[in-house]
Amino acid sequence: MLILALMELSDRQRVRLADGAAPDEVHVGTGDLACAADREALGKAEVAFGSCPPELLPGAHALRWMQLDSVGCDQYLTLDWGQLGSRLTVTNLRGFFSAAVAESGIGGLLALLRGIDDLMAERTRRAWRQAELRPRLRTLLGMRVLIVGHGSIGHALHERLSSFGCEIITYGTARSGADLVTVTDLDRELPLCDVVFLALPGTPATAGLISRPRLAAMKTGAVLVNLGRGTLVDEKALVASLREGRLGGAVLDVTMREPLPPDDPLWGAPRTLLTQHTAGGWAGETDGKIDGFLANLRRYRAGETLHGVVDWARGY
Amino acid sequence: MLILALMELSDRQRVRLADGAAPDEVHVGTGDLACAADREALGKAEVAFGSCPPELLPGAHALRWMQLDSVGCDQYLTLDWGQLGSRLTVTNLRGFFSAAVAESGIGGLLALLRGIDDLMAERTRRAWRQAELRPRLRTLLGMRVLIVGHGSIGHALHERLSSFGCEIITYGTARSGADLVTVTDLDRELPLCDVVFLALPGTPATAGLISRPRLAAMKTGAVLVNLGRGTLVDEKALVASLREGRLGGAVLDVTMREPLPPDDPLWGAPRTLLTQHTAGGWAGETDGKIDGFLANLRRYRAGETLHGVVDWARGY
Repeated sequence: MLILALMELSDRQRVRLADGAAPDEVHVGTGDLACAADREALGKAEVAFGSCPPELLPGAHALRWMQLDSVGCDQYLTLDWGQLGSRLTVTNLRGFFSAAVAESGIGGLLALLRGIDDLMAERTRRAWRQAELRPRLRTLLGMRVLIVGHGSIGHALHERLSSFGCEIITYGTARSGADLVTVTDLDRELPLCDVVFLALPGTPATAGLISRPRLAAMKTGAVLVNLGRGTLVDEKALVASLREGRLGGAVLDVTMREPLPPDDPLWGAPRTLLTQHTAGGWAGETDGKIDGFLANLRRYRAGETLHGVVDWARGY
Repeated sequence: MLILALMELSDRQRVRLADGAAPDEVHVGTGDLACAADREALGKAEVAFGSCPPELLPGAHALRWMQLDSVGCDQYLTLDWGQLGSRLTVTNLRGFFSAAVAESGIGGLLALLRGIDDLMAERTRRAWRQAELRPRLRTLLGMRVLIVGHGSIGHALHERLSSFGCEIITYGTARSGADLVTVTDLDRELPLCDVVFLALPGTPATAGLISRPRLAAMKTGAVLVNLGRGTLVDEKALVASLREGRLGGAVLDVTMREPLPPDDPLWGAPRTLLTQHTAGGWAGETDGKIDGFLANLRRYRAGETLHGVVDWARGY
């Protein structure tokens, strides 16, 4: 059986993967499958580890299982899964990034509330601004926090925020056990919350959820933290609201365009932290992905149910 | 009874204080008691609210109770409390700042671990550095965290950190119920911890606790978060360790010199966040102090035990 890995791996990581996958053969290619050897391997591989370009998937006739190196799989939503799904199972890294993402989201939020963004800027100026900054700071204590999305990231946020003395309300699908399950509920809650975390996948159903009217309905001074997908938010309306001082700040790990081009107005939006889709990352990330893949590979060989199977009807 | 308030108050806050203290008279002076009317009031006042300059306290013969507007009272430690303590009770705002301080401390720590300091700097350069930053990030998940000081700030940190999946060890006095209670225990634990929070008061006993040898004993890459007093740490050794890349970073709310002069090497220390003694602050801080004082004033009038009485034998 040939396994095609489409990830940047160090020599040490290649050995970790090859040793773990033995006796099966591993071919390590680049993510864009630019060279002929990689494309040839894709034609023969039964298993792929990494994110194969969507347009090449239908031609990968031998492929039976693809283990994504991400949670998001929105780039594959336009493929015909009614047909492709009968021969190809796709798994994602559901839950793998949640702790790291929650830490970046809460860290970014606290940085804004506690003035750490301003304080960092003072470092180069060597200016002591204690008296000026202190009365402007806010605390999470006593705030009302809405978590939109009740999957693994939503749960990781909920767990960590629960010890900060804030009130937490969750919104998600009925089967997720969230506090709010209808858009009517969401619309009633949005104007009451001081912080809104977004932790939804990017699907046609979630696109534009945080629309211009919903941004306008949010409480003055509220902070928006987007850890889901850039497609969830009307970015033009967001920038306008931040500039007008209506919204109190934004922490954006995801944006409509990634990498964000230098001319994007988000770069210059006030009180905005752009974490550049790094929230899921940490030093042990790639090793962890390899270990997760190898654990799923054992299940695949044994004919067991794989972890993180994508449901294309839901889109995640 | 005359009450002397030594704080900067808005007109609204003066009314809040005067209404709450009625029928007693409130004289609002400046913290340095520079004008004659303020000094005269100090001579007659039975109660002071705020921080009276230490050198003026022995001459304030009518003063029976001073409610500090801080927790720290190290500036009064050199007075002769054997004598002064027989007529003057001092209370501090123990517990009042803990939630805000814990939020700044954890926010600063997460900012360093999650690369938010670097990401903020990229905003003006409009540079997308996702691939470069992501493998350098760290998570609190799985870390070993030492909280030095087991008072209200230590407890607030402990409570909030307990949901981040890190191992927490506390150091404090025997009666505080901390995990570690001897300096020998502390020295055994220091080299094992990824994060060390300092939340001790500034007293002769705590001065220089985090000495050059103890900084050298800390784990490579460890982060130091000082929320106590600048006197706890050998700052020269700290800067050297940060420059050498031994310590992984520092979040300093307190420093030996405050305001920190522009020539202080701490401004230029790598991976260092200076929160400029803002950690205890928030928009509702002064109103909260007034309410806390008024609650204690009711106890004072009723002859009840006051909240937050300073024990000059311990020094806090």
